[in-house]
Amino acid sequence: MGKTAIRTVCKVDFDKPAAEQPYLHNRWHPDIPAAATIKSGETVKIECLDWTGGQIKNDDSADDVRNVDLTKVHYLSGPFEIEGAQPGDVLLVEIMDVQPFEDRPWGFTGIFDKSNGGGFLDETYPSAAKAIWDFEGISCTSRHIPGVKFAGLIHPGILGCAPSAEVLNTWNTREGELIAANKLDRIVANPPEPINIHAGSASPELTTKIGLEGARTIPGRPEHGGNCDIKNLSRGSKVYLPVHVPGANFSVGDLHFSQGDGEISFCGAIEMAGVITINFKVIPSGLATLGIKSPIYIPGPVEPTFGPGRMLYFEGFSVDQHGKQHYMDVTVAYRQTCMRVIEYLRRYGYDDYQIYLLLSCAPIQGHVAGIVDIPNACTTIGLPMDIFEFDISPGAEVVKRDLGSCAFETGKKGLVVDDAGKNSEISFGGGLNYKE
Amino acid sequence: MGKTAIRTVCKVDFDKPAAEQPYLHNRWHPDIPAAATIKSGETVKIECLDWTGGQIKNDDSADDVRNVDLTKVHYLSGPFEIEGAQPGDVLLVEIMDVQPFEDRPWGFTGIFDKSNGGGFLDETYPSAAKAIWDFEGISCTSRHIPGVKFAGLIHPGILGCAPSAEVLNTWNTREGELIAANKLDRIVANPPEPINIHAGSASPELTTKIGLEGARTIPGRPEHGGNCDIKNLSRGSKVYLPVHVPGANFSVGDLHFSQGDGEISFCGAIEMAGVITINFKVIPSGLATLGIKSPIYIPGPVEPTFGPGRMLYFEGFSVDQHGKQHYMDVTVAYRQTCMRVIEYLRRYGYDDYQIYLLLSCAPIQGHVAGIVDIPNACTTIGLPMDIFEFDISPGAEVVKRDLGSCAFETGKKGLVVDDAGKNSEISFGGGLNYKE
Amino acid sequence: MGKTAIRTVCKVDFDKPAAEQPYLHNRWHPDIPAAATIKSGETVKIECLDWTGGQIKNDDSADDVRNVDLTKVHYLSGPFEIEGAQPGDVLLVEIMDVQPFEDRPWGFTGIFDKSNGGGFLDETYPSAAKAIWDFEGISCTSRHIPGVKFAGLIHPGILGCAPSAEVLNTWNTREGELIAANKLDRIVANPPEPINIHAGSASPELTTKIGLEGARTIPGRPEHGGNCDIKNLSRGSKVYLPVHVPGANFSVGDLHFSQGDGEISFCGAIEMAGVITINFKVIPSGLATLGIKSPIYIPGPVEPTFGPGRMLYFEGFSVDQHGKQHYMDVTVAYRQTCMRVIEYLRRYGYDDYQIYLLLSCAPIQGHVAGIVDIPNACTTIGLPMDIFEFDISPGAEVVKRDLGSCAFETGKKGLVVDDAGKNSEISFGGGLNYKE
Amino acid sequence: MGKTAIRTVCKVDFDKPAAEQPYLHNRWHPDIPAAATIKSGETVKIECLDWTGGQIKNDDSADDVRNVDLTKVHYLSGPFEIEGAQPGDVLLVEIMDVQPFEDRPWGFTGIFDKSNGGGFLDETYPSAAKAIWDFEGISCTSRHIPGVKFAGLIHPGILGCAPSAEVLNTWNTREGELIAANKLDRIVANPPEPINIHAGSASPELTTKIGLEGARTIPGRPEHGGNCDIKNLSRGSKVYLPVHVPGANFSVGDLHFSQGDGEISFCGAIEMAGVITINFKVIPSGLATLGIKSPIYIPGPVEPTFGPGRMLYFEGFSVDQHGKQHYMDVTVAYRQTCMRVIEYLRRYGYDDYQIYLLLSCAPIQGHVAGIVDIPNACTTIGLPMDIFEFDISPGAEVVKRDLGSCAFETGKKGLVVDDAGKNSEISFGGGLNYKE
Repeated sequence: MGKTAIRTVCKVDFDKPAAEQPYLHNRWHPDIPAAATIKSGETVKIECLDWTGGQIKNDDSADDVRNVDLTKVHYLSGPFEIEGAQPGDVLLVEIMDVQPFEDRPWGFTGIFDKSNGGGFLDETYPSAAKAIWDFEGISCTSRHIPGVKFAGLIHPGILGCAPSAEVLNTWNTREGELIAANKLDRIVANPPEPINIHAGSASPELTTKIGLEGARTIPGRPEHGGNCDIKNLSRGSKVYLPVHVPGANFSVGDLHFSQGDGEISFCGAIEMAGVITINFKVIPSGLATLGIKSPIYIPGPVEPTFGPGRMLYFEGFSVDQHGKQHYMDVTVAYRQTCMRVIEYLRRYGYDDYQIYLLLSCAPIQGHVAGIVDIPNACTTIGLPMDIFEFDISPGAEVVKRDLGSCAFETGKKGLVVDDAGKNSEISFGGGLNYKE
Repeated sequence: MGKTAIRTVCKVDFDKPAAEQPYLHNRWHPDIPAAATIKSGETVKIECLDWTGGQIKNDDSADDVRNVDLTKVHYLSGPFEIEGAQPGDVLLVEIMDVQPFEDRPWGFTGIFDKSNGGGFLDETYPSAAKAIWDFEGISCTSRHIPGVKFAGLIHPGILGCAPSAEVLNTWNTREGELIAANKLDRIVANPPEPINIHAGSASPELTTKIGLEGARTIPGRPEHGGNCDIKNLSRGSKVYLPVHVPGANFSVGDLHFSQGDGEISFCGAIEMAGVITINFKVIPSGLATLGIKSPIYIPGPVEPTFGPGRMLYFEGFSVDQHGKQHYMDVTVAYRQTCMRVIEYLRRYGYDDYQIYLLLSCAPIQGHVAGIVDIPNACTTIGLPMDIFEFDISPGAEVVKRDLGSCAFETGKKGLVVDDAGKNSEISFGGGLNYKE
Repeated sequence: MGKTAIRTVCKVDFDKPAAEQPYLHNRWHPDIPAAATIKSGETVKIECLDWTGGQIKNDDSADDVRNVDLTKVHYLSGPFEIEGAQPGDVLLVEIMDVQPFEDRPWGFTGIFDKSNGGGFLDETYPSAAKAIWDFEGISCTSRHIPGVKFAGLIHPGILGCAPSAEVLNTWNTREGELIAANKLDRIVANPPEPINIHAGSASPELTTKIGLEGARTIPGRPEHGGNCDIKNLSRGSKVYLPVHVPGANFSVGDLHFSQGDGEISFCGAIEMAGVITINFKVIPSGLATLGIKSPIYIPGPVEPTFGPGRMLYFEGFSVDQHGKQHYMDVTVAYRQTCMRVIEYLRRYGYDDYQIYLLLSCAPIQGHVAGIVDIPNACTTIGLPMDIFEFDISPGAEVVKRDLGSCAFETGKKGLVVDDAGKNSEISFGGGLNYKE
Repeated sequence: MGKTAIRTVCKVDFDKPAAEQPYLHNRWHPDIPAAATIKSGETVKIECLDWTGGQIKNDDSADDVRNVDLTKVHYLSGPFEIEGAQPGDVLLVEIMDVQPFEDRPWGFTGIFDKSNGGGFLDETYPSAAKAIWDFEGISCTSRHIPGVKFAGLIHPGILGCAPSAEVLNTWNTREGELIAANKLDRIVANPPEPINIHAGSASPELTTKIGLEGARTIPGRPEHGGNCDIKNLSRGSKVYLPVHVPGANFSVGDLHFSQGDGEISFCGAIEMAGVITINFKVIPSGLATLGIKSPIYIPGPVEPTFGPGRMLYFEGFSVDQHGKQHYMDVTVAYRQTCMRVIEYLRRYGYDDYQIYLLLSCAPIQGHVAGIVDIPNACTTIGLPMDIFEFDISPGAEVVKRDLGSCAFETGKKGLVVDDAGKNSEISFGGGLNYKE
């Protein structure tokens, strides 16, 4: 408590492949050996790699994003055994601090190529793109999206306790059924697959088993949270996590400097490596006394406050870009809401991919506004006007600026697919010039 | 300005059926005659009925909700011709004030029976129920949901300009296609239908035409907004509405004293009759200069502020209550998030229907948290802890209280359908009693 | 509770002099007869005159302000007997609503002439001036201070319970000592004085006694609150008031549509007539159990929120405009802080009196920032930038506008006294024109 | 910009006396040599000692506070020459970050003995006392004031540019006149005094001159800001500082983890050593174009938000604890407001000195509420209820707890002076026990 330094239970090494570091792992499984033991009541520091394990560079090409190896991501720190935690308990996790490494004050937001990961708007924007963000204290700016600056609501994208064998089996069964029933022309879920499996300090035999059974880290899941990508799980937040195995086996990773609701471009937060400081407390029999099945949380008392009158809201409905009416489909509505923001911001000189990136990582508010007026679900996105250096309010004059471009693959521009399915390259700064 | 009273352009009559009042109408159609003319720049008062046109009474039975005639709802005030507005313009609507009638300081929240309207959770909660809310200044309380009190973020549920014939045709076509393709065992959209049609002061011939073509008012639609049910469109908000016909033909109605994100029980806001004060301004060619296809808005500067540390957040994922995995289905995720809140609040003595009602009308925050981590969409609901008279934070002692019940049909309790599809009556105050 | 109208316990009459209305009074005294009786737990409506009792008109001359009769102000509504309240109790007053009269949607802010009331900056600005404000819903604008618009945080300037004879004696003694010791060339306090005394329904004999003993209403006093002019005592606030006499004898008046911290021009809030809705509850022995000597309060949950990044702060220190160093004098520091705002806003075309009026009534934040670094107290004023229609942030271009003038006496402009004591007339729109 | 580390222009050494470190100084004077040069537009890191230069230890005795040498405090880092800055310019200082040293995660709040420094309430509380605070991320707790925890709004207490010779002369003249005129039985200001003078890297001759002329650092001053102790000058804030000498000669120090309005105990913030990251920009001729005489600032967008309904407000008036009436004295009113908070919080088991310390460093809101109602100024203090681990709202049950004590001098308790001037020792946990 003050007089003594806070213990660091996991140190990462940037000079060694993630897969060779025994404090990391990339599957959810009850048998991954604990990387360290933490007392209930203790506060510790945990170092984390960025979620791609260092595959993305601080440069001006999106080639690394185009070619990212998605079997080598989500190296989580842990698992950590919390003394005394038992199935049925709740682990109270208080996030005391999250910081980038002092000598790595930068992060990235990426749009994956539709054929290698994709994203929420990949039907319209299939190309890979990237923006690098520089951190100065609580603020971030990007040479790839000039004209914006905002304070990060820094948080982990992934945290949770290990599943029990029974919970794991539930996951594999229900996701397997979805995969089996799939008729869409896209991957709908990833089953256990023994490629590039990293099970921490597990023996080769155990690693093989974990590869065959272990749940992939991409989706969050109701039983433990996991990759929930919640933008306000920041400093001072308290998260109540269900415990499924003795010792809880808590893992954390995928730190974000900032994220918008939805993290729409998939690699959409400002991804970074860094250090998270956490206090752990075990609440015995917490599942029953709290009446919870999924994690609950209370955000910290500190967040950027723009004031309601400084938010510009956009509406979207479950009618897609081809004019097709969907029945109460919030996903369609939210995608359309994103498109409305892109169309609006284009006027200032941004290209569509810059805005797509910005929507993913800036602290936008994404609300389920109306969900009962058949057949149209209505969603809204609130865009804080004060993150822009110029006035984007509806009453202000629109001046088209030279706002450069985000990073694309070498020698290419991003593609835009119109409603008829025709591809074309984006025109940089392609908005109408209202000043002229 | 101050010296002279603000002009009231529409007065409603509580002693006469809504269908006989020529300033009201219940369809969207370009030919409904204007009820009054308003200058660009003018501020006027508009009286509105509640959205059921007075079918719901201030009593302790939900029989009226059970038997509500859904062909006789959404009597909107208007349409109002705004001088000079032309297709392609934007109508800037500033909401100066919304008030209940001084002698009707109450409203209601209803859950429709699954066979007559239904709601977002009707698979689990199929019965009709009702809560009456009393207004005292900015606050509301309910004898049917004791223990809560909150400030209303008062707003209209419906506002928009009339569609052009072309826009109307688009609506009817795409919704017709949805209806034609429907294989679900439920109504997915309502086509034009000449029952209980009210077209304001239209002639009988014109009324017949409007009945055959006019769009129903239930869904919001991207081209004009309409029934978007957005909870923070309150006092001081500025809404930018697309204009499709000469004179704009603006209509408004369905006033809400308060609403939660999603308005989940369908009749879920605190519905009321009242007076809305609006300032209108025409922005010539606004569609092109603002780059909008759907309405945008800026909320007013005044709203209840609970502070991030006073919100308790719940998570939900696209795995339904039967354990089935859905692919990135935000609707499923949001329904599960609602269920997590119900399970949590049950402990204090509320029955499920009380909480379902409360979730619909209290200012909950419903976020699209993660939308790219296949196959699980993640949504969150933020519940402001300060609307409760007792401490609901996870660390506080849980005391089960006698919190009565909401109104049900005469002689019946509400039903709960469990995951296997079995019906049972709710047990009042059915939570575990943690104190004993 | 909803079904029945809220009882109005005091109705004011605009066609009759305030002094003839028996529900009003303008002194604090234990013997003023109760105007009505209210139950503990009851909610009632109370009508109030504006604090000048109607002396100020909605016109463009400040002659009425110049000549205001300050012996005829502060006609409070009440006193109201709260059943069961006893000395030593606390009266919990919850402010449910405050509204202007529907047919009087306007208010005023005045600067009194230095020789008839004066104000906080009267050494520099000795003239009378006035601004009329028009209310539209929660917002107000003024033809006398164009370019600003803000939401009012509406509240009563005065509320409190009657003093006991003993408390009254304490007041008269200590204020008398101040008057006796005064060596300043200004009035420092007003003793009881039997001019224009209005003691409600008191008999002539009793009125005479009250005139000789009754405390004037201008200052707030620690024992009961009174004229505390606190800007966020708005809708939803709970105030805990000490009770000194049986029945509490609660009075209220001096309604404000909005006020800045300090209410610096004396008649500085946006003064209005209106209706306040209050719920009363008696807390037996509350003084001892709450440990209070003066009122405490909790503001309501609803207030204009500008966001910290939309506030522009000014600093002032206890060095006066003549360069004289004062010892830790917060009053001097606050006056200097006001002057810094005036100097800053002048650039946009406002005259000094307009800004002085604006500072009095807009929701500025006035903080005691540093009070221990001898000899300089430091105060700050936070000015919300979003109340202006144009951008006043330090980085924006300064354009001098034609912003008219506030109302002055017929045929006169306002005077400005420079540091050497020399009088001159203000030059309208007198700032430098940075655009040229 | 991300790829390269941010330059540190000043490193402090904890193993060497402050007076021997050439990057530090403890006077304001134009001739102190620049410690480093910074470009306009550059972001740098600056290390700072705590304001006592390390005299206060992390232990449980206030002996160090009792005996602090006040001639050896306020070792500021700098001055730093900003390239191109000229008198008449404004230096725009953006505070990017403030952090404690990673290996010194603690700070202190002290009450000075009345005979050695004193504080705002020293007439009542004359003893020395201390509380040590431990930092965990954004939060702090104290073993000396248990039961509270809050997020720090971290900021520098002192920043400003060097005075010109002319400005310095103004300071010395006006403060000298105050000292000469003093008839109070206390020090009212500190003149230049050549004791323990530290002028950075100045030669002995120059140091002697600076000792004779240099302004002491205790008070803030209107011409440059200096020790203004403003609690929300935190991360993301932009401060506009007047430039008086070529190169600006900017200095900074006295870092605070948190502070309440007024910093009432003098050493009242949570004082700490740490690192501040600042971006500098010169605004040519900014004094004229901005119309400023004193610094202005815009707070950062991130701050703890408690919500208005979670603040408990106390009122104070200019009647002192002896019952004496003062004329519009805000300082007296603010002192009384502090006393009201102390009386209220005593009930929970805190001793008066603990509360006095807490009031100094917790983020209380101190407002100038009413400043025109003669003779009583009214001030308010808003206390955020959520910093307490138990419920301090007026409606909650009061349970007296064992809340220990702050640190006092070895073998002594703190003294309390009653209104008659009689000394007594505080009784620990001295409130009434309302539970029994």
